[in-house]
Amino acid sequence: MNAQPVNIPSLNDIASAARRIRNVVRRTPVIQVAAGELDVPVPVILKLEFLQHTGSFKVRGASNALALLRAAERSAPTAGVCCASGGNHGAAVAWAAREAGLPATVFVPDFSPKAKTDVIESFGARLRRVEGFYADALAASQDHARHEGAFHIDAYDDPQTVAGQGTLGLELAEQVPEGQPVLVGCGGGGLYAGVALALDGRNRVTAAEPSSAPSLTAALEAGKPVDVEVGGIALDSLGARRAGRIATAVGLSLGMKTLTVADEDIAAARVLLWQRLRIVAEPGGATALATLLAHPEHFPDGATVVVSGANTAPSSGVS
Amino acid sequence: MNAQPVNIPSLNDIASAARRIRNVVRRTPVIQVAAGELDVPVPVILKLEFLQHTGSFKVRGASNALALLRAAERSAPTAGVCCASGGNHGAAVAWAAREAGLPATVFVPDFSPKAKTDVIESFGARLRRVEGFYADALAASQDHARHEGAFHIDAYDDPQTVAGQGTLGLELAEQVPEGQPVLVGCGGGGLYAGVALALDGRNRVTAAEPSSAPSLTAALEAGKPVDVEVGGIALDSLGARRAGRIATAVGLSLGMKTLTVADEDIAAARVLLWQRLRIVAEPGGATALATLLAHPEHFPDGATVVVSGANTAPSSGVS
Repeated sequence: MNAQPVNIPSLNDIASAARRIRNVVRRTPVIQVAAGELDVPVPVILKLEFLQHTGSFKVRGASNALALLRAAERSAPTAGVCCASGGNHGAAVAWAAREAGLPATVFVPDFSPKAKTDVIESFGARLRRVEGFYADALAASQDHARHEGAFHIDAYDDPQTVAGQGTLGLELAEQVPEGQPVLVGCGGGGLYAGVALALDGRNRVTAAEPSSAPSLTAALEAGKPVDVEVGGIALDSLGARRAGRIATAVGLSLGMKTLTVADEDIAAARVLLWQRLRIVAEPGGATALATLLAHPEHFPDGATVVVSGANTAPSSGVS
Repeated sequence: MNAQPVNIPSLNDIASAARRIRNVVRRTPVIQVAAGELDVPVPVILKLEFLQHTGSFKVRGASNALALLRAAERSAPTAGVCCASGGNHGAAVAWAAREAGLPATVFVPDFSPKAKTDVIESFGARLRRVEGFYADALAASQDHARHEGAFHIDAYDDPQTVAGQGTLGLELAEQVPEGQPVLVGCGGGGLYAGVALALDGRNRVTAAEPSSAPSLTAALEAGKPVDVEVGGIALDSLGARRAGRIATAVGLSLGMKTLTVADEDIAAARVLLWQRLRIVAEPGGATALATLLAHPEHFPDGATVVVSGANTAPSSGVS
């Protein structure tokens, strides 16, 4: 596998994805938050991606992959789609498959929270719990694809998934000032890669990782994806044990340095989002903001922060 | 009292308010929601005013009134401010007073929920619970103003409060298409009046009231504010027993017909906002959307709906 060249989507691929999913996904707005309001002395722009279908950006990539699949197999209906996910990508695939009229099977690690598995099942997908971590669910989904003829939609290491996530970056290019640093939460790195490719140097993009699941940090240090120990508060959304080859290649080519943040800072950022803006975010959805708050010295003129991931019981951990 | 002329703010008053509070309140974004996504066959634009400081539009009016007070009394410091409120206006006055460095006393009816009184107290205001309804808290605040020399900031029937709320309408004029109907939740009618005056015929504005607290509906029928019985699910935000004289005059002059909605439809709209957009709204914050969903025949080409009011325990009633 490692000998294969990495297929990195082009700006054109991202623009095509944007046209393909324009009538499917929501264009999410931003809000300007003045210096001091989030306990940092710099202005912050929040990209409100939690308002997206299924509560996260994941529907962008899933919808793009599904649209291409339908175009390719219009004359030979597929046996359906499958995926592996801590929960958010699974919800996105389940939603996009329902929109497309296709059956879906979603493999989740057994710690995936009820708030996520309920959403997956609400769209009519078949849920399969797998003992272990995301990597184990991934192996099960790939097995399922081989044996059942279903189409596996990868959560972050497929060019069409990354191109779909990149459409969020195209929106940012119209919404935030040129040169404004952008922070995105990072698990396998699909959002990071897509947004960095879409912004194409217009804005520097930094991947924000929980210290408890630093897969892209480790990959950039090693010069290639490597396994890391994963755990912690955001395990169910940013808990990939190994970063994507695409994200790693993009991060290395741009000389990007990740930033990491402690679990307790992520928990505090969730409370702050509720207290100051009445936004409910899951830990993965608050990780980028937590990283800004923990490392303000990296952002002396402020930053744009993507808030994505609200698949949580609304009562839990926000107040 | 009824013989006094009603002092209705001008467009110029609203524009002045916007300049006055520009660096204090947030400009809140809108999101386009496609036909069908909220179970009505028409597109909907949501004005995301729950992202405002203190979770509701009320800081617009409170900040405008306070800014004028400070300008007028710069040389003679006031004894502070006071107000009566089901909770949201009280939170707004407490917040704006803290920003201005003035003491505040907030009178609430004793049913005001902990989610609201906690917010009021978090800004350092003195909280006074009054047996009865909003009208009883209002009498207590007016008494307090007379005896202590504090400045009473009215929740909805003061031209400067209404001018402040109208700044939301000025934002809508830049955010939504001309001619698109606008729906706002209505208690005493301060937001309705301000937005209708700001939009000045560009967009038709309809006041949405719970059937359980129909104060403006009754006022428009009677041709003047009259007492109504109030209760129901949104009592703590839209529970004014008597509509404002300003809102009544504006509604009569524009020939506006209110729309009313049942409590169970408001409860269902809250669940829908969480399920489809991960928005937490209190009952008053979901009343305008509930009204659209209950009366789609009035909005054949869609509507803009203001979502304001998120002062609720996030666990309660949204999922």
